[in-house]
Formats: sequence, C-alpha cells, structure tokens
Amino acid sequence: MTHELAAVDRWWRAADYLSAGQIYLRDNALLRHPLEPGHIKPRLLGHWGTAPALNLVWAHLNRAICERGLQALFVAGPGHGGPAMLANAWLEGTYSERYPAVTLDEAGMTALFRQFSTPGGVPSHAAPQTPGSIHEGGELGYSLAHAYGAALDAPERVVACVVGDGEAETGTLAASWHLNAFLNPTTDGSVLPILNLNGWKIANPTILARLPESQLIELFRGYGYTPTIVEGEVGVDPMTVHEAFASALDDALDRIDGIRAEHAGDPDGPQPAWPMIVLRTPKGWTGPREVDGVPIEGTWRAHQVPLERVREDPARLRLLEEWMRSYRPEELFTATGAPVPELDAHRPRGAARMSATPAANGGELRRDPVLPDAAAHRVAPGATVESTRVLGRWLADVMRANPRDFRLFGPDETASNRLDAVWEVTSTQWMPARLPVDIRLGRTGRVIEVLSENLLQGLLEGYLLTGRHGLLASYEAFIHIVDAMFNQHAKWLEVADEVPWRRSVSSLNYLLSSHVWRQDHNGFSHQDPGFLNLVVNKGPGVVRVYLPPDANTLLAVAEHCLASRDHVNVIVAGKQPEPSYLSFEAARAHAERGLGVWEWAGTEVEGREPDAVVAAAGDVPTLEALAAVDLLREAVPELRVRVVNVVDLMRLRSPDEHPHGLPADEFSAVFTDAAPVVFAFHGYPSLIHQLAYRQPNHGGFHVHGFRERGTTTTPFDMLRMNGLDRYSLALAVLRHVPGAELRHPHAVAHLTAGRERMRAHALEFGEDSPEVTATGWLERLIGAARD
Amino acid sequence: MTHELAAVDRWWRAADYLSAGQIYLRDNALLRHPLEPGHIKPRLLGHWGTAPALNLVWAHLNRAICERGLQALFVAGPGHGGPAMLANAWLEGTYSERYPAVTLDEAGMTALFRQFSTPGGVPSHAAPQTPGSIHEGGELGYSLAHAYGAALDAPERVVACVVGDGEAETGTLAASWHLNAFLNPTTDGSVLPILNLNGWKIANPTILARLPESQLIELFRGYGYTPTIVEGEVGVDPMTVHEAFASALDDALDRIDGIRAEHAGDPDGPQPAWPMIVLRTPKGWTGPREVDGVPIEGTWRAHQVPLERVREDPARLRLLEEWMRSYRPEELFTATGAPVPELDAHRPRGAARMSATPAANGGELRRDPVLPDAAAHRVAPGATVESTRVLGRWLADVMRANPRDFRLFGPDETASNRLDAVWEVTSTQWMPARLPVDIRLGRTGRVIEVLSENLLQGLLEGYLLTGRHGLLASYEAFIHIVDAMFNQHAKWLEVADEVPWRRSVSSLNYLLSSHVWRQDHNGFSHQDPGFLNLVVNKGPGVVRVYLPPDANTLLAVAEHCLASRDHVNVIVAGKQPEPSYLSFEAARAHAERGLGVWEWAGTEVEGREPDAVVAAAGDVPTLEALAAVDLLREAVPELRVRVVNVVDLMRLRSPDEHPHGLPADEFSAVFTDAAPVVFAFHGYPSLIHQLAYRQPNHGGFHVHGFRERGTTTTPFDMLRMNGLDRYSLALAVLRHVPGAELRHPHAVAHLTAGRERMRAHALEFGEDSPEVTATGWLERLIGAARD
Repeated sequence: MTHELAAVDRWWRAADYLSAGQIYLRDNALLRHPLEPGHIKPRLLGHWGTAPALNLVWAHLNRAICERGLQALFVAGPGHGGPAMLANAWLEGTYSERYPAVTLDEAGMTALFRQFSTPGGVPSHAAPQTPGSIHEGGELGYSLAHAYGAALDAPERVVACVVGDGEAETGTLAASWHLNAFLNPTTDGSVLPILNLNGWKIANPTILARLPESQLIELFRGYGYTPTIVEGEVGVDPMTVHEAFASALDDALDRIDGIRAEHAGDPDGPQPAWPMIVLRTPKGWTGPREVDGVPIEGTWRAHQVPLERVREDPARLRLLEEWMRSYRPEELFTATGAPVPELDAHRPRGAARMSATPAANGGELRRDPVLPDAAAHRVAPGATVESTRVLGRWLADVMRANPRDFRLFGPDETASNRLDAVWEVTSTQWMPARLPVDIRLGRTGRVIEVLSENLLQGLLEGYLLTGRHGLLASYEAFIHIVDAMFNQHAKWLEVADEVPWRRSVSSLNYLLSSHVWRQDHNGFSHQDPGFLNLVVNKGPGVVRVYLPPDANTLLAVAEHCLASRDHVNVIVAGKQPEPSYLSFEAARAHAERGLGVWEWAGTEVEGREPDAVVAAAGDVPTLEALAAVDLLREAVPELRVRVVNVVDLMRLRSPDEHPHGLPADEFSAVFTDAAPVVFAFHGYPSLIHQLAYRQPNHGGFHVHGFRERGTTTTPFDMLRMNGLDRYSLALAVLRHVPGAELRHPHAVAHLTAGRERMRAHALEFGEDSPEVTATGWLERLIGAARD
Repeated sequence: MTHELAAVDRWWRAADYLSAGQIYLRDNALLRHPLEPGHIKPRLLGHWGTAPALNLVWAHLNRAICERGLQALFVAGPGHGGPAMLANAWLEGTYSERYPAVTLDEAGMTALFRQFSTPGGVPSHAAPQTPGSIHEGGELGYSLAHAYGAALDAPERVVACVVGDGEAETGTLAASWHLNAFLNPTTDGSVLPILNLNGWKIANPTILARLPESQLIELFRGYGYTPTIVEGEVGVDPMTVHEAFASALDDALDRIDGIRAEHAGDPDGPQPAWPMIVLRTPKGWTGPREVDGVPIEGTWRAHQVPLERVREDPARLRLLEEWMRSYRPEELFTATGAPVPELDAHRPRGAARMSATPAANGGELRRDPVLPDAAAHRVAPGATVESTRVLGRWLADVMRANPRDFRLFGPDETASNRLDAVWEVTSTQWMPARLPVDIRLGRTGRVIEVLSENLLQGLLEGYLLTGRHGLLASYEAFIHIVDAMFNQHAKWLEVADEVPWRRSVSSLNYLLSSHVWRQDHNGFSHQDPGFLNLVVNKGPGVVRVYLPPDANTLLAVAEHCLASRDHVNVIVAGKQPEPSYLSFEAARAHAERGLGVWEWAGTEVEGREPDAVVAAAGDVPTLEALAAVDLLREAVPELRVRVVNVVDLMRLRSPDEHPHGLPADEFSAVFTDAAPVVFAFHGYPSLIHQLAYRQPNHGGFHVHGFRERGTTTTPFDMLRMNGLDRYSLALAVLRHVPGAELRHPHAVAHLTAGRERMRAHALEFGEDSPEVTATGWLERLIGAARD
C-alpha cells in the first residue's frame, strides 16, 4: 500500500501545485526562476480553500479506478473547485485532448494558468467547459441530487460526490441525503457521498463542522448511511490521512459491492445502508499557514485567494514561492513541463479517466429515444377529455419502448395530474419498507415521486446530463420552487452549446398541470402562472414554451419535446375535462406551425379584414375565446372576428430575439395590421406585451390573463375575477372595435347580464352553472372544424 | 390527569366533528335530523387527512396553556389543515370575535360549515383569513423556519410547530431542523416541533414514516433534538394516545424550562438538545375505516375527502352520519349549538388562546422601528464609495436603536456584501461550538447567517409576521432560490390587506447586491437579474422595486423601506466602488420622486425638445449612461441629450397598473413625446417594455440591459457583451437620432474604436483599462450638480 499511497500523494501534490498556479501565475509556471512580480497575474481570482480536498479525493479515486476497474463519475459539490477539476483534467491528458492549445508541457501549463478566471479564458468554477463535469459549481446545493440522477439506470457506475459543508446547509442538499430511498442496488449504480468538512464557508463556520462527532454520526446513520470519518488537521502528516482515506474508500467500495451482491440475491430485502465518508480536513490545507500573524490555513480566510497583494509585497511573493515549492514541482514535472512518468503511470486510461468519462459528456452515451406514434392515442374532435390523461397513455408507451433510459419525475402528483396510465407498465421506484396497503410501488420502476421539486429537478438534470431522457410533471404554481435550478440548467445548456466537444443531451421537459385556471378549489396559494416569465429570460437557443389547447395538440407537442435536444421545454396543459378541437393531423400541423388562424372558429369573410382578432394561448383561454366568439356570433351577427390560436409562445417574439420568432410580415398576416386584438392568455397579461412589443400591431393588443386575483371559488369565477371569462372577452371585443359598443348596446347589456348570472349561480351553489360548462355550441364549432 | 384528559378528548372530538362538518355539511349542522342529501354540500372539498392530528395537538396544547400559563403560537405545517384551524378558532370564540356573522351557535356553526372552501367563503388552507395563523398552508415546507423566526427575540413564546411528514421531504424543511443552531434559550423563545407521521402524502407513503424507528430517532438526535415518539394505530383507544402525548408534551415543556434555566446560569454552555415529538397517528384517524371494502383510515385515501359521492349514495350518506355521530355531538354542543360549558371551561382565555394570540397577528405587537437619520452617513457627491458599505453603517445605527426587534439575515455574505459595520454593534448569533479563531460570533446577535436563502427567508417571514423588522441581504443571482417563497409571502400580504382584523406588519426588505454587472469574476452562473421579473407579477399593492444609483440614494431608499409596512421592497445596489452623484438632500428628493431628469448631467437647452433621452435604472447603468452622454458631448457637441434617472421602477407603469405608476402626461414630460429614448437598464431589457408598454413614447424606447450574455471576464467586458457599455449606449443614441449616424461618421468610428480598445485591454491584462474606470469627467459633472 505504501507504494500506491506515495503515488497518490504525488498526484495530490501535482494537482495542488496546478491549482495554486492557476490562481497566481501568468509566467514561470514551473518555478524555474525565483518568483518575480511580473510572473503574477494582475488580478488574483479563484478559490483555493476547497481545492486540496477535491484533489485528494480525485487522487484516491484514481487509485481505486486503476485497481478495481471502477467506472467512476466525479461530482464536485464545492462549487468553486474549478482549479482542482482543471488540474486533474490536465494531469490526465484530457484537457489537451479537449483543448489542443493547452498542451501537456510547460507552454500548456502556462496556458492553463493564464486562462483561468481571465477574460476570454475559463470560468473559476466547474462549468460546461470543464472536462469531467456535469455539475456547475456556481449556485450550491445540487451536487448530491445530480449524483443520484446520474446513478439511476447505470448499474456499473459509481458516482463519487464531494459535498461541501457549506452547500450542506442548503435545503436541496439537506433533503438529498434521503435520495437513497430511490436507488436500486442492482438496476441502478451507486453514489458515494464524501462530505468534506473543511469547517468554513466564505466567512462563517459551517453547522455540520461544529456538531459533536457522535451527533454527526447519528445524523448520517439517521439518513440511512454508514458513515466513516477520516480526519486531518493543520500540520498533520498527509500520509496518515492518505492511509485513513484509502482504507475508508476501499471499505466503502467493498461495501457497495457487498450491497449489490446481497440485493441481487434478495431484491426485496431491507433498504441497504450505503456507505458515506466524512472527510474532515482543513480549509486550504497545505496552503499558507499564517500571513502577518493571522491564521489562514484551516480558516475561512483560505476560502478564495489566501495570499493577496503578492505582486506588491515581496514578503508575500516569497511566501507564495515557498508554498508552491513545498509541493516539490521538480518531482512532479519533467524538464519539458509534462507530468513525470511516475504520475502518468498511476492514472486511469482513456474513458476510465474521470475527466474523460462519457458519463460526464452524456451526449456520448445518449441514444435517441424510441418514440411510439402518439397518434395511437388520438381523441376525436369534439370529445371532452382530460388532456393529461391522454398524454399519460402515450407516456406509458414511451416507457414500454425505452425501458432503461426514460423516467418520469413528479412530486407526489403523478396520479393527481392524471398520468395514471404509466402504472400499467411500470411502478414507482421505492426502496424503503412497503406495506400490504401500498399500491404502485416497486423496487424498480420508471416513476420517481418525492415531495420536493428540488430533488426531482436535480435527479432529472443528472439523468439527462448523463445521456438519458425524462419529464418532470408538476403543479404549475409550485414549479417556482425550482426557478433557481431551472436558471442554472438553462445557463449550462447555453454555455454547453458553445463548447465544441460537448455532445447534445436530451431536453429538460416540464409538464405543468393543475394550472392556475383550475386551482379554484385550492385557492390563491395554488394560483401562479409566473414560471413562464422566468423562462423567457433565458437564452433563446434554449427555452421553448408550449400551450397546447387540447389533447391532440398536447400529444403532438409532447412528441416534439421528447425528441428534442439541448432545450428546456415547458408544456402547460390541463388535467380537467376539456373539449378537443383538432384532429390529430390538424393538431400536429398546428403544433408545428406554432400558431395559426382557426378559420372554422371565426366569423370573418374572405377578402375582408376582420373587425377584430380574438387570440388565445392556453387550454382554458382557448375555450373561453371560442365561447366569446360564439357569444358574439349570436349577439352581433354582423361582426367579423378572426380566431387565432398560439401553441408556441416564442412565435410572438421577433426573429432577432428568438429562433421561433415570427417575421413581421407573417405576424401581420395573422394578427392584421390594425384590427384590435383581444388576446386571452394563460399567464400574466404583460408577458404577451413583453414578447410581442417589437411586432406590428402590438399597440392593438389587449391582453386578458391572470391579474393576480384569486381565491377559493369556482372555475368560472376565477375567470371572471381576472376578466378572462367568455363574457368579458366578448365585451372587450365590442369595446375595442371602434363604435361597436355604441352600435350594440343590447349586446353589451346581454353579455354583462350573462356574466353576472353565472357569477351569482356560482356563489349560490358552489359550482358553475350548467350553462357555463355546456358545450353544445362547441359541437357546432367542432363540426365545422371537421368539415 | 384522567379528568384533564377527558376534557382534552372532548375538545378533540368537538374539533374533529367541526372539521368533518366543514367538508360535508351545508345544513343540519348539529345532526338534529338524520342526514339527507340536501344537507350535503354540492361540491365536496377540503382535506380531512391531517385534521385529527392537528386537532389533537391543539387540544393538548390548550391544556398546557391553562396549566402553565404558556404563551403559545401554533404553526400548522400540514398545509391543508384549514378545517382544523377554523374548528379550533370557532370553539375558542375567536372566530365569532373576528367574524361576528359566524356566531357561537347553530346558525354560526352552519355558516362556518357553508363558507368553507366555497365561492365567496374561506380558503381550504390556513391562510391570512384564518385566526391564529402566520403560516399559509398552500406550498409546503416553510413551517419550521416560520416557527423559528417567530421565536426569535420572544423569550416567553413557545412556538408549537406541527410538521407534516409530506412537507418534511421538501428541501427547506429538511434544512430547517438545523435552525436550532441559532436559537438562544434565554433571549429567544423556544420551538417545539411535532412531526406528525401520518404516513402518507396525496398518493404515496412518506419517507420518514417508513424509516425504522431506531433510525428515525438517530436522525433527530443527529439534528440536535431529543425526540419522543408517541404512537396511535387504527383502532387503538385514543385515551392511550392522549396519555402518551400528554406525558410527552409535559416532558417537553419541562425540558424547555430546564434548558432555559440552565442556559441562564451558563450562557456559554454547550448547545442544548431541544425536545421534539414524533406523533405517529393514522392519516384521517377516526374517519371512515373502509368504504366498499377499500381501506381509507390510515391510508393516502384519507388525504382529502374520505367519502365521495355522499349525496348520490345513501349507503355513504349513512357512513358519513355514523362517522360524525361517533364524536357524540350531543355531548359537545348545547341545544343552541354553542360549545358545552365543559368545553368552554377547559380552554385558554383572551390573548392566551392560540387562535387569538397577538403573535399570530403581528401588527398587534409591532412597534414602529426607531430609524436614526441616515443623513449621518451621507457621502459627498463626487466621492467614490462602496454603496452597501455606507448602508452597513446606517444598519449598525438601526441595530443600536432597535436592539430587540430588528435583524439582518444573510447567506454567509454579510461581509462579502460590505455590511461589516454591523459587527461594531452586534454579533452573528451562533449556538454551536466556537473556536478561538472565530470572529464576530456570539451567543446573541442581530445577524443570522446560514447558507440557505430558504431558511433566511422563512426566518424573516416568521419574524415579520410576529411584529418585528428585518432585512435579507443576498447575492442577486441566487435570490431566485426563494422565488416560490417570495410569491407566497406576497400573496399572503395581498390577501391580509383585505382582512379587516389583520394589522399591518413591517415590509419584507431585500437588499440584492453582488449583482449581475459586478459578478464578472464569478462568471455566468452568478449573473442573473431576473428576480425583478418575478416580483413585478405580484400584487401592485405589495411590490416595490428600487434601483438607487448611488450611496446617498441607497440610504434614502433604505430609510423609506424600513419604515414601510405590508410591502415587499426589493433594493438592488452595488458593493463595488462607484461614484456618488447626488447630495443627500437631492438623493432623498430623487428617491421620493422615484425618477427625474438630471439636468446637470444632460446637454439639453431650455425651451427645446432634446434630440434624445438617455435614461438609466441601476447603479452601473447610471454610470455608463452618464459616461455615454459625456462621450457624446465631446464627439457630437451639438447633440442635445436629456438624462433621466429611474430609482423606483414602478414609476414606469401606468397608474391603473400600479399605485406608483406615472400618469401619461407626467411620463411625457420626462421621456418626451417623440424623442428616441436609449434606456440603460440593470436587468433584462424586455422588462422595461413590459412595464412601460402603455406609456406614451414607449415605441421610442430602446432598452439596453442584460441579454443573458456572460462569462468570467472584466466589468467592462460584461457591459460590452450586453451592449450596456458607455460606447454602445452613445452609439445607440447616434443610431436612433434620425440622420445622426450619417452626419457624424467620425463620431461613430471614434466610439466604435474606443469600445474595441477597451475590450482589447481587458483581454490582454485581465482587468479594465484605467480609462474605463477614470472619473475625471465625473468630477466635472458632479461639480455641475453641486452648483
């Protein structure tokens, strides 16, 4: 073992040296000469504090990979550990393969140092540009969920996840420990969490680092793990830590093998207690111990740049040189600056390198999903169906056709969102105890449910970034819980698109149901369509928003989204019974165009500009818009109204803002040049203005949507409160068509009275009037659509 | 004890009866007659599953309140427990005091039943309308953080927090257990968490309910608590549970007293292990056991309405009647429908009632904060300062003046955000072990830091809703982590405003620093100004957004925000050195107006419309806009440019959309009727269009802001990438002033070359050119401003 640990230590010193070099040096990378101010970068950036521990874990994992043929994926939770990730990738030769300009010699090492956290260079965190990473190191808290997502359905994979004690304070991370409830030891891979207690965040101690050790052990045993603690203090001989960590790692990997074997023999046995390691090492270990009498190593002061003003202060320059020479670079690099043969001999080769594993560039593993024809689940125009229930049937087909690499994630709402059909082909995966009363649960299954959108999002991201496919279905209002995670994933995709060696991964698909217009019974807290506002801010190359008006269009949109790559697709669809308007073929064509005039629903006459346009985006708004036009057809027969339906919200943007944006002339052809446009929108009205403000006739848009008015009431009353009900829409048309109100006072009175009647009925009976939910008028319309 | 427990049981049965009644009955509230279909509500809504356990805890707490004179606040984590909260408030007489129409008799009971989850009635969750609640029961996960926030600085208060095992799976709740790290036993109150393991969510078992009991105990011991488990199974005699729970509760309260006494004697002793109770009772306990051979009680099927189709199915109607009669209403209510004297005798009185405690209507306890004059920290116009550092000095004054009811919350970034001055007057509160190397930590203190924006937001909400004041300072990009919590709090405030008995509470104040334009070194993951897009969606009565351009304006805005009530105020301000433009008096006036023409900075001449308007919102955009105008002054001296600065973003809305909205004529007076407006904006450009689309001259707005282009680079390069740098703004003015580009080709070439020169410098030297950061031109401007 001593020989192997000497090799591990050598690797560790090399990686530490390279980590420090990235933060400080623009020249003299090998310290061939005494350090001079001119060798130092003009702006010192980067995070040293976490680097030594990351490098230590990496070095030890390399030993295990070589000895055991491990298929390891490394997830670096301590976000700012960019220097460490880059150092190891360079040492393994991967960096030069990915970026040929950064060669494996002195020039390349200098380039590695110079580019770090420099304009035009590379980010200071693990990022899409970083070989071997599926995990952005900016916002903290998602490492362990990413690790579990990466392990699903990859039985041979061991995901080593270093969790920082800072990020361990975040909500998502705290809940992520429970994800062992979903990992099947034979059909999934394994996750080895390594909690690095370096004791400090930017400026404060961490909670976990200050727990008495016995309490810490209880905590992780309570979370269902078997923890092992490895400790190293300031000044301790690293070899003792190497010995302890090597033994802990070997034990953990043996234990993982044991769990897998045991479970293979007894797939219904008790949930295993997986190993985890607590690595307690000083923050910025091996860095400067003290500066000007102030302790640095082992304190929060080592978080970023432990020695500041190195260019200006000769004493500090000397300290830096001593520090860097303490790694004995002459033992680590050849005269040309390449890693010495002893380093190279002890590293994994090819795809076994954690910096080069295809799992960290999931597109290399990804296979296009097999997508059964959604037409098999078409519904007849005119049928009243729960759209998401129809979708669920197709999702069941998708699961059948992709039994190993498609998963559905939901926060305990898969049944509530009407996706029940999936349980005809699969189970909800669940490792804890089961009771006779349980239904749908199994030790394997394509569905994962846990009451945390954060965990689901993290799992799905990890699953997608390692080359698989999936869908997250959530209540619309509560998807805001993952706003920040969505942001970070969208940013990842934006950047990854510009990294030449990153291969495409499947899109992250959201199905938002139980939406604002049908949360009348759950009340105001459940009524929020604002996720769309967040989504449209992100890179136009990445984000897509779909609002299918009916079940067939939902099927068509879902087909498209599941086949797509490198996007975030947001689909908003209802789970309540609603009419179907389009045949499947028409729906597919409509989804493909993204928006269109529904001639069959309007009252315009050929060759004449309509008096008004009634547009809709969203299932409930579509129904109300059609009903409004129907009311107008009766109340003001001579009025000529065009009906427009928008499925793909990005069509409203201008083409220079989004690739789906509609050119101005086509926009005019749909929305006219000057007719008033009453737009019934699923979300906040001003979002339509935000998207369409550059388009022609935008000044004529009058958008009705959610005005943040809500309570516990009936569906009709929700619409009425927000001016999105059919009567309000019809009245808006009369208001905006010049002179129409004056010419048709009876129509105005009739529509106003209708609205009040409906409202009174709801208040009296606690439900909507039959008149509101009747669809006789729809049948007529849909008959026309069929013809 | 037996006598007391009989009273507890009686209360429990009464509350259960009333809970069931709310879900089912519209008539025959006292079951004077056999149930008929007409007595049943037309639409059955509400959640039964959690009600019995909530009622049980409430009943037992009432006993403890009476016996011990406890000042208890109840937080109902299981969100849908509305019926239970309402039942107890009615039984205690509070409901009739708050809502006189709902009397304490049969008519009132009928009204209580009818209004529940009915159009025009009351929500099905605990909500602002619910007496005794500071916690909305919609989105799950925030109960325990709310409880800890409510306990801070309230030494006499015991916050009993029922945590559902569903919400326990959320990230925020999982991390919230660690909040015991911040609770001082003598200067703060105490929190008694009661985890109700009823075993199920909507459709799935919960993770915690399926852990082996020994593991569950380890988990909570690991979290730092002393857990006691109380169990009741389907069919068990409730009296045995009452006995066990009463004993557990008494022990817990004794233990709390002991901890407090011990800590008073040894304030630097070890962190105490607070008690917590695990109450394992069947979901929907005492409800229907089976329906049509399918088990209901003790399964997920009891989550909402355990008996459906009661109106239609006589057998079910009979089941419902049996169920409700099982509570023996004749022993609970008098002939007139009031609670029997035995019930009334065993309840707390007045403000001791948990339904009437002023802590749950924090405005009753709130005292206006003492706000020292911020002018004391004014900076001289022309000075270059870190604005947030200046603010920190005033916050220190605020802490001095409000030593018991103002707190600062931050995710380990208080120092990073330059608010260090606060540590001159206070410490960071921290109960775990301290080391000699620690600084700033104390057992008491006005600062709380934990690396979880969710926990901080939850604490602050709990603190504000119980009548105190505070500020949450965060990195701008990562505030998205609490998007969902912000949404729910804003909704709470929107609704509370309409509840007559709810008294005003202090506003929730965000300080967003380390913002998008100065996260160049941290890279793309740290660059996101999108929180503002989220905020503007919420009720105009509630949301306010301020973008002070300099330190004095920041002081003025902060003064205003800390004095305000019932709002959410978002302040975006930089922490990097930046120039001060306005004297303190001018800044205060500017903040009050919310926007204005900066005559001293522009080049317009009296009596003539300017050729262009250059507007700015945000500190960095203001600097760039001023610099752009200065560049134009030199390059095209004859061009007349007006400079407009916007502090209060809501001024851009129209008055019918927001109370701060600017009337069209005033908007025209500032932005002109037709001149091109080049708008330098801190956030996403389309947000300005979203806000101002109804305003005159909106078509002439050309907004430059964050276009989602970012990386690790220099401040100047960040601006350049997004077209927000001074050169790009100046070029935009020339582009949009008709003919200007053609007339001034040299100016265009000069500005373009300047931009490229700066960029090259940044790429070469890893820092911005001295030319970029020079403020010589600024001194001239500011001199003019002073004159």
